[in-house]
Amino acid sequence: MDLTALRTAHPEHWGKATAIRALTLDAVHAANSGHSGMPMGMADVATVLYEKHLKFDASAPEWPDRDRFILSAGHGSMLLYSLLYLTGDAEITLDQIRNFRQMGAKTAGHPENFLARAIETTTGPLGQGIANSVGFAIAEEVQRAQFGKKIVDHHTYVIAGDGCLMEGISQEAITLAGRLRLGKLIVFWDNNNITIDGPVDISDATDQPARFRAAGWQVIEIDGHNPEEIDAAITKAKTSKKPSMIACKTHIALGHAAQDTSKGHGALTNPEQLIAAKEAYGWSTGPFEVPADIKSAWEAIGSRGASDHAEWKTRLAELSERKQGDFNRIQSGEAPKRLQATIRALKKQISESQPKLATRASSERVLEVVNPIMPETLGGSADLTGSNNTKTGDLGVFLPENRKGRYIHYGIREHGMAAAMNGMALHGGVRPYGGTFMCFTDYARPAMRLAALMQVPSVFVMTHDSIGLGEDGPTHQPVEHLAISRATPNTWVFRPADTVETAEAWELALTSQKTPSVMSLTRQGLPTVRTKHSQKNLTAQGAYILAEAEAKRQVILIATGSEVSVALAARDTLEAEGIGTRVVSMPCMELFEAQDETYRRRVLPAGPVRIGIEAAVRQGWDRWLLGERGRANKAGFIGMDSFGASAPAEELFEKFGITAEATVAKAKSLLG
Amino acid sequence: MDLTALRTAHPEHWGKATAIRALTLDAVHAANSGHSGMPMGMADVATVLYEKHLKFDASAPEWPDRDRFILSAGHGSMLLYSLLYLTGDAEITLDQIRNFRQMGAKTAGHPENFLARAIETTTGPLGQGIANSVGFAIAEEVQRAQFGKKIVDHHTYVIAGDGCLMEGISQEAITLAGRLRLGKLIVFWDNNNITIDGPVDISDATDQPARFRAAGWQVIEIDGHNPEEIDAAITKAKTSKKPSMIACKTHIALGHAAQDTSKGHGALTNPEQLIAAKEAYGWSTGPFEVPADIKSAWEAIGSRGASDHAEWKTRLAELSERKQGDFNRIQSGEAPKRLQATIRALKKQISESQPKLATRASSERVLEVVNPIMPETLGGSADLTGSNNTKTGDLGVFLPENRKGRYIHYGIREHGMAAAMNGMALHGGVRPYGGTFMCFTDYARPAMRLAALMQVPSVFVMTHDSIGLGEDGPTHQPVEHLAISRATPNTWVFRPADTVETAEAWELALTSQKTPSVMSLTRQGLPTVRTKHSQKNLTAQGAYILAEAEAKRQVILIATGSEVSVALAARDTLEAEGIGTRVVSMPCMELFEAQDETYRRRVLPAGPVRIGIEAAVRQGWDRWLLGERGRANKAGFIGMDSFGASAPAEELFEKFGITAEATVAKAKSLLG
Repeated sequence: MDLTALRTAHPEHWGKATAIRALTLDAVHAANSGHSGMPMGMADVATVLYEKHLKFDASAPEWPDRDRFILSAGHGSMLLYSLLYLTGDAEITLDQIRNFRQMGAKTAGHPENFLARAIETTTGPLGQGIANSVGFAIAEEVQRAQFGKKIVDHHTYVIAGDGCLMEGISQEAITLAGRLRLGKLIVFWDNNNITIDGPVDISDATDQPARFRAAGWQVIEIDGHNPEEIDAAITKAKTSKKPSMIACKTHIALGHAAQDTSKGHGALTNPEQLIAAKEAYGWSTGPFEVPADIKSAWEAIGSRGASDHAEWKTRLAELSERKQGDFNRIQSGEAPKRLQATIRALKKQISESQPKLATRASSERVLEVVNPIMPETLGGSADLTGSNNTKTGDLGVFLPENRKGRYIHYGIREHGMAAAMNGMALHGGVRPYGGTFMCFTDYARPAMRLAALMQVPSVFVMTHDSIGLGEDGPTHQPVEHLAISRATPNTWVFRPADTVETAEAWELALTSQKTPSVMSLTRQGLPTVRTKHSQKNLTAQGAYILAEAEAKRQVILIATGSEVSVALAARDTLEAEGIGTRVVSMPCMELFEAQDETYRRRVLPAGPVRIGIEAAVRQGWDRWLLGERGRANKAGFIGMDSFGASAPAEELFEKFGITAEATVAKAKSLLG
Repeated sequence: MDLTALRTAHPEHWGKATAIRALTLDAVHAANSGHSGMPMGMADVATVLYEKHLKFDASAPEWPDRDRFILSAGHGSMLLYSLLYLTGDAEITLDQIRNFRQMGAKTAGHPENFLARAIETTTGPLGQGIANSVGFAIAEEVQRAQFGKKIVDHHTYVIAGDGCLMEGISQEAITLAGRLRLGKLIVFWDNNNITIDGPVDISDATDQPARFRAAGWQVIEIDGHNPEEIDAAITKAKTSKKPSMIACKTHIALGHAAQDTSKGHGALTNPEQLIAAKEAYGWSTGPFEVPADIKSAWEAIGSRGASDHAEWKTRLAELSERKQGDFNRIQSGEAPKRLQATIRALKKQISESQPKLATRASSERVLEVVNPIMPETLGGSADLTGSNNTKTGDLGVFLPENRKGRYIHYGIREHGMAAAMNGMALHGGVRPYGGTFMCFTDYARPAMRLAALMQVPSVFVMTHDSIGLGEDGPTHQPVEHLAISRATPNTWVFRPADTVETAEAWELALTSQKTPSVMSLTRQGLPTVRTKHSQKNLTAQGAYILAEAEAKRQVILIATGSEVSVALAARDTLEAEGIGTRVVSMPCMELFEAQDETYRRRVLPAGPVRIGIEAAVRQGWDRWLLGERGRANKAGFIGMDSFGASAPAEELFEKFGITAEATVAKAKSLLG
């Protein structure tokens, strides 16, 4: 590249873009790790975007109507940190830049949304950002339909690299965005033809523009170092009814000895080459030093949106008080006050009528009362609507012709769905839930982990949660998926036993601010086990005594979900034989773990035989069976230790020995 | 559709195709569950493929040079079962068809490769089959390059539905196949515009032909009910140097009242409609009854390949004895005899030289001696070759211009890689391994589960296996992934402590016939802990005494991988204070669990304090700490209970308290 020509053609632009490149070189050099090349390659695009287009107010990073900027190529985190520091973000200071990738810094190796308010999402696992962005764009459309264009009217911009576009999730994201005609979604493709292993050609020969067009996108191809082309492309993209992909031909590590090489993708730490690159840029200040005129030009960009922001506040204040209240409540993530009463009323009704329902149907019953009072819920399913019971009558379908629709047909895209849900939750103003089969937790897994890491309360509705699924067989029967979700930090895994517990679980999930929930729900019908109404949300305690021993307490059966009724049946038999048996329902291990020891000891006292019953692998159970005052020679587990099989459900429970009879036999043998 | 016209135009074809439709209707009716529409829609394509093109010999379903037929749309399993029964497969008998989806039947809800020899792969989780097929096609190319066209020369045919094509993994599969120019891969797209939730348009508007062309495929669009068009398309596809996608416009549930509806996607069990459909077909025999002439026409198709097969046997016999021996050994999945001696020699050398190496580098050392003696290994990485240490000098890169290459640059496609590896293992003749970061187990997870379910010995090389990854931060630091893999049935999770254990783990992985392996390997350097050479593979026992207590045994430290040296350092301190401490290295929990109790008791006797040390979540550890004669008040765990952070590795181990000092303190506090 002829840097002099670039510099001469647009000197002011060049100074601003060079600040990004220089800060990146310095930070990576100081950290002795990181990714230099991407921020250096995309500095021009980012500069034009921030200077001319991005609606934001650096002093108010949480302004709800800001444009969102998603760095899907999260390894290029110094691009984002540079932009935030330069525009005057209060959190990403120069000190933070100097401490790039160090303990306690907000400038982590990859952008972490929970470290600074201006970081929209956590990226690094490739493809997640572009898939989040679909959720951001959907949330914007839905909120705009609800509150009007004067309050909600912003774009979602994304920078995605070759890695993002090679990941399968990107296909799910772009085809969903194309179908839904998310015109306010604009993706810049950093087309630098370099990945870690070498040129992209080594592993890929995809015609990306053709691929995006095939998915219903507008595609604009530009020189990613020409500010005029960048500006024109963004201007054009903003008027499109289709989502836009701007293919930016760039040079990774522009101006450095490693330019256009896969070395340039990584950490450029050689001091001589660093100096040479800065010289080539015409950048003569010391490390981390941005000339005052350039810094103030950037700060002007950072405050450019302040007046817009002020006008927006005025417009918000002009809404009716009720509308304002709704907007602010939803934005804060608070559930409406009447949620509690609604849930209690349903619980009461269920405890009285005692229906036999699959918990997936219980979940629908809950959504039927919740969705009408929570306009922020945004439901969906990965093409299993009738099976996941996720759609209630009042939700219209979200489509280009119906932006008020609150139900999304995600298609057969579990991963894209989960990542889009995270994006919605991060955007704010909506509360997403989405369904698939529990077994396909596997497909959604990378995004489910990120929900937990990012501290967003997405709700994953996972039905058909055991061999109870029946004939579809082992490919569709989860056995390890409860353990997988429970192994993940900051995740609530609910496995309710009946409609009452399902309602309680939903109440917790919908009031959660920082923890995602996994709803593990049955395909098969279950009796109501909470036949006595309690106002209190017992599921909030994680586990509780559902049925106390009548005879002298010798056995405690601990069960979840569909196995709670198995435990109750086993208790009947044992009690009939004079063996006092307590049944503990344990719908959420994580919440039980969070209780104080006094309560845990009350539920699980030392002494009796303990048997865990769950149609899944034992992993995760030993802490309740052997720990918490338990003893190995008095503990047993009734569950799965292999994959399932294809046959009718009842036969499978027999075959795998998950029955009241087997429980009784195990209890007796442990009693000796 | 005008069935009469179809029937009149090609009466013989019609009879054969109708047999599939009628069997499907009868089997789903009898099972009262299943998917009728897809087999009914694709019966014409399958009939022409089997009759005119597919190279197979129904009497020898394991003939190595057969064409492979992959039903990626696995829910349409009755298509495959019908074809197998009709062509005379010995295992899929009429009785099996009658017992569709019943306990113990080979005709499971979704095709399971381990139930019948003629079922090439397990499908059902959508997109897996098409991604497997890329591995099948790669294996064919590699084997052909090694043994010549006379011995290996076959096609891989796939039927994929809309669901397969919506899943992100399909994008990874088709772009990889396009780049690698896998001309012998032919995919039929069952273009019926129906998914479970409704018409495809409800969630997708992708121009699939354009998408495949953008990925480097030949696309042929046909009427999927016209046998002449089908035949011509296959003929054309077979001559292409690019992979081919044949877009077959079809009617789901052809001829049934539910034709072209999403009801037709599911189980069509209404008896009157069933009778009406058969009448419309002109099919007058009773349930499960195929007219003799049609059955014998199908059986002729089944034996059509017998002479080809016989000629192939002759050609194989004409190879040199060494070549034949190699072919047969590799085909059987047996490792070469000298593998053991090679591993032992490396172990001896390492125990003597005692290098400090990251186990990812240890793994490379092992591969350097293994790859030259095992021509069947086929390595690769998802764009992290230098980080995963998966490429050794002798492996060329597999590309269109180098089919002898044994290393695959999979690109940033972890899921596609894992599924392709499964396909290679199923194809036979190669032994696949592939690398990514341990954290991205998440991305590969659906295929890793299927490796376990399908009983194929794929080797997943997962490096950067803890916070030891350092500055990249929590998005890249696994904490729950050991638990996830260990929760999965039939999976060996190896976490070796040094190069010797790494060599032992590889020996086990490369001799495994039915169990996949996960290699959990460090980024950071580790000392050699196996400083005394042993001929025996100690890793095969799962856990063993690495260092015995010298003073009176009061403590047992159980550790894996990078934490074994932490345990040894803690032992030094404890012994210096007179506290006898045993260190147990536990590189594979699954193999330890499989040992007899005598051995397990010897390694983990009752009495001493036990501490588990692993830089990961505790889930899965309690059975060794609290179970196996352990006691809760004498057990502790040193590990992670949250996500990690972005900082240099050593600081992270300090921050999260995974140190020898913390271990010593925990031991003392437990000793009271």
